[in-house]
Amino acid sequence: MGEIMIGNTMMDAPLTLLALLERAEELFGDQEIISWIPDPNDRSDRPRPLVHRYRYADACRRSRQLSSALANLGVQRGDRVATLATNHYRHLEAYLAVPCMGAVLHTVNVRLPPEQLIYIVRHGGAEVLLIDHLFARLIPPLLANCPALRAVLVMGGPQGLAASLGDKVFDYEAQVASGDPYFVYPQLAESEASGLCYTSGTTGMPKGVVYSHRSTILHALSAALPDTGNISRHDTLLPVVPMFHVNAWGVPHSGLLAGSRLVFASIYNDGASLARLMESERVTGGTGVPTIWMGLADALEEAIGAGHPYQLQLKSLLIGGSAVPEALIQRLDRLGIQAIQGWGMTETSPIGSISRLPPGIDLGSELGGHLRAKQGPPVPLIQARVVDASGADVPRDGVTMGRLLVRGPWVAERYYLSDSTDQVVQIGGQNWLDTGDIASIDGYGFIDIRDRAKDMIKSGGEWISSVFIENLLMDHPAVAEAAVIATPDHKWGERPAAVLVLRSGAAASEEDFRQHLMDRLDRFPKWWLPDRYIFVPELPHSSVGKVLKRALRERYGLTPPG
Amino acid sequence: MGEIMIGNTMMDAPLTLLALLERAEELFGDQEIISWIPDPNDRSDRPRPLVHRYRYADACRRSRQLSSALANLGVQRGDRVATLATNHYRHLEAYLAVPCMGAVLHTVNVRLPPEQLIYIVRHGGAEVLLIDHLFARLIPPLLANCPALRAVLVMGGPQGLAASLGDKVFDYEAQVASGDPYFVYPQLAESEASGLCYTSGTTGMPKGVVYSHRSTILHALSAALPDTGNISRHDTLLPVVPMFHVNAWGVPHSGLLAGSRLVFASIYNDGASLARLMESERVTGGTGVPTIWMGLADALEEAIGAGHPYQLQLKSLLIGGSAVPEALIQRLDRLGIQAIQGWGMTETSPIGSISRLPPGIDLGSELGGHLRAKQGPPVPLIQARVVDASGADVPRDGVTMGRLLVRGPWVAERYYLSDSTDQVVQIGGQNWLDTGDIASIDGYGFIDIRDRAKDMIKSGGEWISSVFIENLLMDHPAVAEAAVIATPDHKWGERPAAVLVLRSGAAASEEDFRQHLMDRLDRFPKWWLPDRYIFVPELPHSSVGKVLKRALRERYGLTPPG
Repeated sequence: MGEIMIGNTMMDAPLTLLALLERAEELFGDQEIISWIPDPNDRSDRPRPLVHRYRYADACRRSRQLSSALANLGVQRGDRVATLATNHYRHLEAYLAVPCMGAVLHTVNVRLPPEQLIYIVRHGGAEVLLIDHLFARLIPPLLANCPALRAVLVMGGPQGLAASLGDKVFDYEAQVASGDPYFVYPQLAESEASGLCYTSGTTGMPKGVVYSHRSTILHALSAALPDTGNISRHDTLLPVVPMFHVNAWGVPHSGLLAGSRLVFASIYNDGASLARLMESERVTGGTGVPTIWMGLADALEEAIGAGHPYQLQLKSLLIGGSAVPEALIQRLDRLGIQAIQGWGMTETSPIGSISRLPPGIDLGSELGGHLRAKQGPPVPLIQARVVDASGADVPRDGVTMGRLLVRGPWVAERYYLSDSTDQVVQIGGQNWLDTGDIASIDGYGFIDIRDRAKDMIKSGGEWISSVFIENLLMDHPAVAEAAVIATPDHKWGERPAAVLVLRSGAAASEEDFRQHLMDRLDRFPKWWLPDRYIFVPELPHSSVGKVLKRALRERYGLTPPG
Repeated sequence: MGEIMIGNTMMDAPLTLLALLERAEELFGDQEIISWIPDPNDRSDRPRPLVHRYRYADACRRSRQLSSALANLGVQRGDRVATLATNHYRHLEAYLAVPCMGAVLHTVNVRLPPEQLIYIVRHGGAEVLLIDHLFARLIPPLLANCPALRAVLVMGGPQGLAASLGDKVFDYEAQVASGDPYFVYPQLAESEASGLCYTSGTTGMPKGVVYSHRSTILHALSAALPDTGNISRHDTLLPVVPMFHVNAWGVPHSGLLAGSRLVFASIYNDGASLARLMESERVTGGTGVPTIWMGLADALEEAIGAGHPYQLQLKSLLIGGSAVPEALIQRLDRLGIQAIQGWGMTETSPIGSISRLPPGIDLGSELGGHLRAKQGPPVPLIQARVVDASGADVPRDGVTMGRLLVRGPWVAERYYLSDSTDQVVQIGGQNWLDTGDIASIDGYGFIDIRDRAKDMIKSGGEWISSVFIENLLMDHPAVAEAAVIATPDHKWGERPAAVLVLRSGAAASEEDFRQHLMDRLDRFPKWWLPDRYIFVPELPHSSVGKVLKRALRERYGLTPPG
């Protein structure tokens, strides 16, 4: 191997989030940012929304002021600044202000039980916390249990709220007003940390993933490409995915980079609110989990039924975060909305794959339908492979299942404050992240996630995809939600059982579902048919809406049948 | 400043061109690549085109074979491999094979005079040269004058051609056939050199710009974004820009990354050939210099006149490389083709800015027309500023002129084998490249290149934009080409003179042009009016089609008027 290298002549221009801020200031100053925020003076359980509008120029100026105020509070390069907030313009300001000053934005999931939330803030070691007034009740326990926390800034809420909570609690607006709108940012290295987000971990303690400036910018570029999110300056984007959840799938970063119009819904995530917001602000693209778009579909169908359909300008909706039922895609099709499925995880920043059809395959065709129900090929700069127990690639036949491994510049290989690399597999001298998902991959390169490894059912030595059977059951009109879990079996080791929640007013029997699945036996082997059907009023969910199968197994799966 | 940094948890995944090749192999194997190539057995001056079709899978397999063959010829990491070739599939194979094996692809401009071309190959230090059979006459002088050159591979041509040229000359196809289709690529660092291209330098010796794997991948990402090139898997791209000229503006890289269908025209760059190729291959996007698209417009108009219009599926054409006359944009508009102007240079990889309209401004509006005639805002990750002689930013008023500086991860700050940083300006601790262009910048962030600094006319201490007056003159129906140059003047220092080439069959007088400009005095100050009009049969051009104003000045500009 030759050892003489010729040096490239390119300048050293690191990839940092300052590029987003400066670009926004220089080119997109007039672009609008719209937020529905809870009326601070409405003390009801469901406060009225107020509409807040301003422009990129305002967001950037206030971000510099916020950075200045945080610096005055002692925040230094590398320090963590946590947020406990819904989606709105102030949270966006933190997205810019914190990393641009060299600090680390630690977004915390507001839906977690208080003890987990306190664990995460303490473990992350935040010095300052930005918190929505809606969650003010959490401030005293957080201050009591997080020794590093030296200041809390309250966003929104009635006047005097912050002052009433002690001398470490300040009003966000007063702090911003005190800051220097010409605050000068340091020159950062692209390897420096910009963000911190904890996995929702349905098992064990939550683990932190640290994003870098580099990983965030590269993710934002790839996510904005025409065949990924297709994010343009001409778009109006509504990220319903929470900003506390893996950077709202990177939409704020890609949107700022492109100069898109941005719309935030705070707590107004029900279908009717979203439909109203999408109509009034002419939203062209949204991102959210399946349940969000089910709610939207309900609202749109109801409005059509009532003879007052919403006038939407949606180009597409991105769906991800949990398995997407084919029936939901078809339902949105009928409403004239193109649903595009993606796959990712906290450890992948999150976008790993996106399910856009290759040329020559129609959306409405049978093949198109099957491909759209999969999670799609990896996005540019992400590599994916599916391997068997020996680490060898499984055939790309769309059938053979194996563990999904991914690799790329926005994929984590370890966790915050941990040296463990248990989740990393070495192949050919390269590190790959074991996603913990069981998947197949087909000739189009489309990944099809069949299960979390821990939810997989192993029957007679062969794997059964619980997600596959769940999706077929969800196609039944009487089903609101379905989970298929392993139950112990003397002969086969494990056998599948279906746990079903019926739609309100619907009536159906075990025999109906057995027949529903039998009618679809061209798509799966007969021995995948569940042995039992259990009807329940609701399923247990995690804080990000995932079904807690472990809890279900503990409740229903322990006793071997007859 | 705090010194405690927290480490990010992202894996070390370098940005290298291997990502393009592996992605193409895994996801886009069936995608087509179409090349028109000269019939090797047609010895006429204008050989018939043969249509060559194959797929990404073939290109990737042959690229690995080519790498293997080059390795067998002794090419090592960091070595230069030069190409002297038009646009076709074999050149694309070199685009993949050479950088993926860690060598450096040195593309050489085939239109240069032989002595410059030899200088560049020798200066670049290539060990192997890949050359189109059309240029076989250059092989003996190149071998005689480039001591590092140890092998030449001839692409295309009649059987036995290579063997007839000596023992260092081999047939490309035989070499590829000898190579291992499973050649394993090394793991490269992203800072390693991947490409080398010399500036066309109208003054002085050509200078080399070395691209890195990192700069090439980042450029490919930004170039593919919806508001830049908007490059998708659903596109069929025809880069008419030569592959020897700044990587064909990066289209091969962005296209491979997206999985686009690719079409190459080799020597068939006349309007009628391009129209025929675009129609038969359903091309959706093309890139080229203004003269190329003038030729296309001629061919399309002629076909319409003859009652047999071409049926094109073009979404847009990218224009750049030299000033784009507003009249050409309007002419393409009338043909139903959206022309989008871009700006860049060899030192910027090349894309620096692109002139897409902001939201709310119609293509057909007066403001839209004015903005489209400018070079647009910088693309994501590129920063641009226009500064006065003291280095201070000029007002963003679209009027005040200054030197255009740019900065970004695919901008060069020095040249190959040179330590000079004469072209670099330090501002706020950051390096900026002085482009040598004089420009204004407006409130939309649109750059308007007024002149090369060396072509600028300084009259009475004030600058006159020669490009601006040229473009107005080009709007006159009798004008085929126009150049405005400085002539010495006793009173004002310099005064502008217009050098005009009339369209064949057109007749017009000095007075006609004076009146034509007088009618447009709302758009420029009266003292910009040329003092003289000189009619010539043709203008001198550089090898990349730029008007050689220096030669014009020497010929026409020396004598003060009257």
